[in-house]
Parts: sequence; C-alpha cells; structure tokens
Amino acid sequence: MDPRTGLPVVGMVGGGQLARMSHQAAIALGQSLRVLALNRDEPAPLVAPDVDLGAHTDLAALREFAARCDVVTLDHEHVPTEHLRALVADGVTVHPGPDALIHAQDKLVMRRRLAELDVPVPPFAPVESATDLADFGATHGWPCVLKASRGGYDGKGIWVVHSVADAQAVLESGTPLLVEQLVPMRRELAALVARSPFGQGACWPVVETVQADGICVEVIAPAPDLTSARADEAQRLALRLADELGVVGVLAVELFETDSPDSGLVVNELAMRPHNSGHWTIDGAVTSQFEQHIRAVLDYPLGATDPRAPVTVMANVLGATEPDVMPLDERLHHLFARFRHAKVHIYGKQERPGRKIGHVTILGADVAPVRRTAALAAHWLSTGQWADGYDIHSGDQT
Amino acid sequence: MDPRTGLPVVGMVGGGQLARMSHQAAIALGQSLRVLALNRDEPAPLVAPDVDLGAHTDLAALREFAARCDVVTLDHEHVPTEHLRALVADGVTVHPGPDALIHAQDKLVMRRRLAELDVPVPPFAPVESATDLADFGATHGWPCVLKASRGGYDGKGIWVVHSVADAQAVLESGTPLLVEQLVPMRRELAALVARSPFGQGACWPVVETVQADGICVEVIAPAPDLTSARADEAQRLALRLADELGVVGVLAVELFETDSPDSGLVVNELAMRPHNSGHWTIDGAVTSQFEQHIRAVLDYPLGATDPRAPVTVMANVLGATEPDVMPLDERLHHLFARFRHAKVHIYGKQERPGRKIGHVTILGADVAPVRRTAALAAHWLSTGQWADGYDIHSGDQT
Repeated sequence: MDPRTGLPVVGMVGGGQLARMSHQAAIALGQSLRVLALNRDEPAPLVAPDVDLGAHTDLAALREFAARCDVVTLDHEHVPTEHLRALVADGVTVHPGPDALIHAQDKLVMRRRLAELDVPVPPFAPVESATDLADFGATHGWPCVLKASRGGYDGKGIWVVHSVADAQAVLESGTPLLVEQLVPMRRELAALVARSPFGQGACWPVVETVQADGICVEVIAPAPDLTSARADEAQRLALRLADELGVVGVLAVELFETDSPDSGLVVNELAMRPHNSGHWTIDGAVTSQFEQHIRAVLDYPLGATDPRAPVTVMANVLGATEPDVMPLDERLHHLFARFRHAKVHIYGKQERPGRKIGHVTILGADVAPVRRTAALAAHWLSTGQWADGYDIHSGDQT
Repeated sequence: MDPRTGLPVVGMVGGGQLARMSHQAAIALGQSLRVLALNRDEPAPLVAPDVDLGAHTDLAALREFAARCDVVTLDHEHVPTEHLRALVADGVTVHPGPDALIHAQDKLVMRRRLAELDVPVPPFAPVESATDLADFGATHGWPCVLKASRGGYDGKGIWVVHSVADAQAVLESGTPLLVEQLVPMRRELAALVARSPFGQGACWPVVETVQADGICVEVIAPAPDLTSARADEAQRLALRLADELGVVGVLAVELFETDSPDSGLVVNELAMRPHNSGHWTIDGAVTSQFEQHIRAVLDYPLGATDPRAPVTVMANVLGATEPDVMPLDERLHHLFARFRHAKVHIYGKQERPGRKIGHVTILGADVAPVRRTAALAAHWLSTGQWADGYDIHSGDQT
C-alpha cells in the first residue's frame, strides 16, 4: 500500500516499452508503476519515478523489489521460473504466476499442455539429436520449423530448415530445441484477452497481425473478413486457455488461420503480458490492454473492450537503417503536419536498424485507407521518407 | 534537448494534477515532463521522474529549472509576472509568455484589454475604496460581484455583495479588487482552444460547465442545445483572443450565456493552460488538451480535436466530507463493477472535503443517461454512496 495514495502498489519486472505504456495507463488509476530495470535509460525509467536498478535474473534484486510491491507483474518472459517460485514461496503475489507463465516461457511445455487440452497445435516433437529431427522430417515432410524452447522473440530462435544438414549449426549449439510442422497458413491472427484472479475474463476483437522478417509490423483490428464463427472460436479458445492455465493479466494467443476444413485455427505462440498485437487498444478501445493488465493484477473488475471505431490499424515504427536520417523531432513535426488524426507512441529508445522504437495508430471506417495511412506514417517515422513521394514543402505527391 | 531521446525537453512549473496529466500525455510523444514542484507528494512528482523541488515564487529555483528545459510552461497562474519576464530576458522560451499570461493572472488587466478589443464583458470597475464600490452599485445595481484581481480560483476570491457594508471585511483586507455587474446568465459555457507559436489554432467543441459552490463539478461536451451560430461565435472569440493576446498552449475562455438579443455571450474568466473544462478531451477527443498543450509549446502541428462520441460528460470527484468513508481502493472496485465503460482519473492527492481528487468521464449517445451515469460515478467515488440507492451486494436499486 502506498501511504501517499492509499492504493496498492504494482511492480513490473523489466523496463521496456510495455512497462512504459503500463505506467502511462496506471497514472489514470491513481497509480505509479514501480519498475525493476537494468538501467535508467530504458523506456520505462525515463518516465516513471519509482525505479529499482537490478537484473531480472538476480533473485536478491527481485526479492528486494518485491518487498516494496503489493503485486509483481512482468514486462517480459525472461525471469527464471525458479526465481518466481521463490518469490511466491516468500508470500509475494506474482501475476501471472510461475505455473501459468511457464507456458509462455517454454515452447515445449506449452505445446505439450495445449495438445493435452485438445487445443489445435501443429505436429511437434522435442529435438535432442539430429536423429530426432530426421525422424520428424521423414514423417511430416520438409521444410520444418526448428525452435529454441526458451528465449526467442521477434523471429529470433526460429529457423525454417530443409534438411538435417541445414540445422547443423543450431543442433550443435546445445540450445534446447523442438521441431514443428510448417503450417500452411493463410494469415496470422491474435486473440487478446485478460483474466483477473477472481476469474473474470474479457476479450478484445480478434486482430490480424502482419509480420516482416519475424517482426510484427502491422495489426488490423478487427481482422478483415474473419467469419464471426471463427472470431468467436478464437475468443473462446483464448478465454479457455487463460482459465485452464490460470493466467492473471493479459494473454495474447497468436494464431495461424489455415484453409483446413475444421476450426481453421492453430495456436502459434502465447504471451502473458501486454503484447504488440494489442497496442492498437490504447487509442482504439474503451479500455487499453495496459489499463486492463493493471486492473487484472489488482483484481479490479475489468473494463469494457469495445472498439472506438470500425477499423483501427497499428503500425510499428522501426529504427532507421540509414545513419543520416532526419532527426526524430523533425520527423514528428512533418508527420503531425500531414496526418493530424495520427496517434503516435514513441518509446524513448535509442534508434538501431529494425528496432521497435514506437508505433502509430490510425482509426477509421474502411480498412484500405486506414492501412495505407498507418503504413505511410510508420514508414515516414522510420525512414524520414514518404513511401508515396509526398513532398513536405509543396504538399504534392509524385 | 534530452540526449537520451534526441527530443526537446518540456518543463512545467507546478506539480498538480494538470502537470500529472500533461506528463501522462507527454509519454506518448517520446517525452518525459520535467516538473518544478513544491514537494514529492504532489500529483505530478508521484508519477514523473524529472522533478526539481522549489517554489514557483523563487526566481533562483525557476532559473535553475529553466536551464534544464528547452521550453517552460505552467501548471497554474501563480508564477510572478516579473519572474517570467526575468526568464525571458535570460533567453528562456516561456509558453505562454508573460505578456499573454498577465491576462489570466490579473482580472483587471484582462477586463480592460477585452473591453479594448470589443469583446463582451460585464460592466466593471477597479475598487480602491468603499466609494468606488458604492458608485458602481448605484450605477449598475446591487448585488455586484467583487473579485480579487489576482490569485483567486475555484470560487475563492469572489464575493457576491449586496451593499458596501456587505463588502466591509474584503475592502479592509487590502486585496486589490475590481467589481462587476452580476450577469443574469442562463448557464456557463467554456470555449477551449490551443495555439502554437507558429500561429496555428485548434478548437474543441464548446462545452457547458456546471458549478457548485464556485467549483466546476460537471462538464457536458458539446454544450446541449447550443445553437451552431452561438457555438461558432464562441470558438471564433476564443481563437481571436488566443491570437490577440499571443497565447501559446491551451486557452480556456469561460463564458456566460445570457438571454441578451446580441451574441448572448459574455467572457467570465481566462485560463492559459489545460483546464478543468477540457478534462473530457482525454477520453472524449482524438487529441486531448494535455497532448495539445505539449504539442503547442513544442511548436508541433496541432492534433485533430474531433469528439469520439456524440456526448461526453466529465464529473469531478471531490474529497469525501465524511471521515469514515470506504477506502478509495474499494470505491474503485465497486465503481468498475457497476460501470465498466467509466473512465476514471485519480490524481494521487490526499483527500480533503471538497478537494478535487479525480474525475470520471462517460461517453455515449444521449445527454440524459450519460450525465446520470457520470454523476452517479463521481458521487460514489466522492462519498462511497450510490445516490440512487444501488446495492453493491444484490445489484438492486431502492
């Protein structure tokens, strides 16, 4: 309990953009997010005052941090499971708890559990040797998808391999691995839900996510042309998983939509925290995923998830690849001059090529123009170039 | 320029809820508001990391603070004009500048300037003696409104007097005063606009403000049943004033609507900062007054001001008058359980009877039910009582 406000204190392990946007949302609830960060220049410590410096792998630092919080939650999946178990044994309230989180930390554990629950997943197998991989390929065909069970993100730790030889370096690295069939998918979807300790669930509209080089670049809410039966199926699946796995907070279920005659949905990944596929909710829904996550971990009743417009598109802003790009401040000026309805979110991160440094959200009535504006805006902020040749002085398009 | 983000630094003098909500909005723009506050328990320092402790009346503290900012703006009107002039002489960018701000600091200066500009104001006169007041009353009739030229807010520094005798204590206090005719008004309105140094203007829909005991308790956006001619007139007036006075940032023009056959609008007060009459814009408009104020002082192009719903009502949450009220945390639980669409903003202030400690915003299609929900929600958060007798256990209304 914070004696200054009379409200319980939420602590988040990790100081990235998810903690930054969670702090922003927490302010409205009378809160100030407490953050455990690696250094003061991370996105969240730049904007939040209650920061402990320490590593998420350091149990002593976690314990000291947790002692100052009423509930501890997470900006990422990299806190060792045994550390979370130690905190729980200390009497700390951790949401999501280690028994839930393990399914977002370890892809093999997740695949096995989901298969047990009869949730559609691709054929998979653990890989401890070249023989395991060869057997799987012989049975299910090549190419296959080889994955590190732990630690991957944004396409890292995932390899599409066409043969055992192709996988040689990864196999020799000693990384714990699993292999999956390459799902012949039509597109990727995400079902975002939240669950409170009381057991209340809430879901946002199912979205389409568009990836490039393994990084999410665009989210369209709701997913265009998704049948209502399939949208319902995805939401029911995500709510059921949140319940079965005992998730508290936001759960993102990344899905492949396939041409299969059955449900047509296959679970790809799980994340138990606010997720890139839900950034659109800040501007596009009555309750954002960040506010909802805070409400859930506080066991407050969850907020309405209605969308605020027929279509919302979120496009990620990636760090510039060219070193001599126009300064960010100038890019913001020109963006606002061209698109006065654009909602911009900048994370305060040093720019590196391809690094997620922000996102742009556009609301509207029709998918095509909203997607186009979001893509133009994000590309401009990334590169200082208008992809349609718009001239910032004359206002002409070439 | 903040070397960590490559963006200019905005500093705000004053650590109240306006600075708190400005910081929240600034986060999206890649910013972190720098704050000069009296102590660390004020609303803004509770949520913002870059805080200098010092008084807004201390020129040395202001200078030290300003040296760390690219632009300085204000949470309130209480910084002495001569201090702001000293900062400007030092080369500091101050928005709004002292020549504009004086019209929000000194009611007599404001009245004289507005009269010169042919802007409708009530008949007024400076009061330096009982005779001045007696003469004014004899000419314009009793009761009159006696006002402190400087330093009033939320009904403080304003007295409705029926005779000279009625004003005796105030007259003897030595406070610089002016007197105005009591305007026979139908209701109060506010026209909120923003202006950038470049000269761009933007206005939100004109709102109706409802006061109780001199404190704003409710804002209805847009003002119900306001003719479009009068709404246009109010917006034009506010944009013109922003331009004529050289305001940079948000300008709130508080208006009386009268039954007079001419424009029917009389200017009551001016505020040059985000204002209680604009809190509805956080949830109810594409660009909030807080984001717009930051954009304006940075000379960014201004954002779209479209409302997000046909009706938005903001109701202030005042500190409980009963000492044994249910804790705020519990009041939040029950509020969210009953109204899952309610948007709540809590400022982190110690509760004192009648003190503004937060606000609630409700969006909807029709004025009556939206007002009712907003009033119920704010009354509940203030008192822990449902004004309609709703039973939090059974869900019944009595």
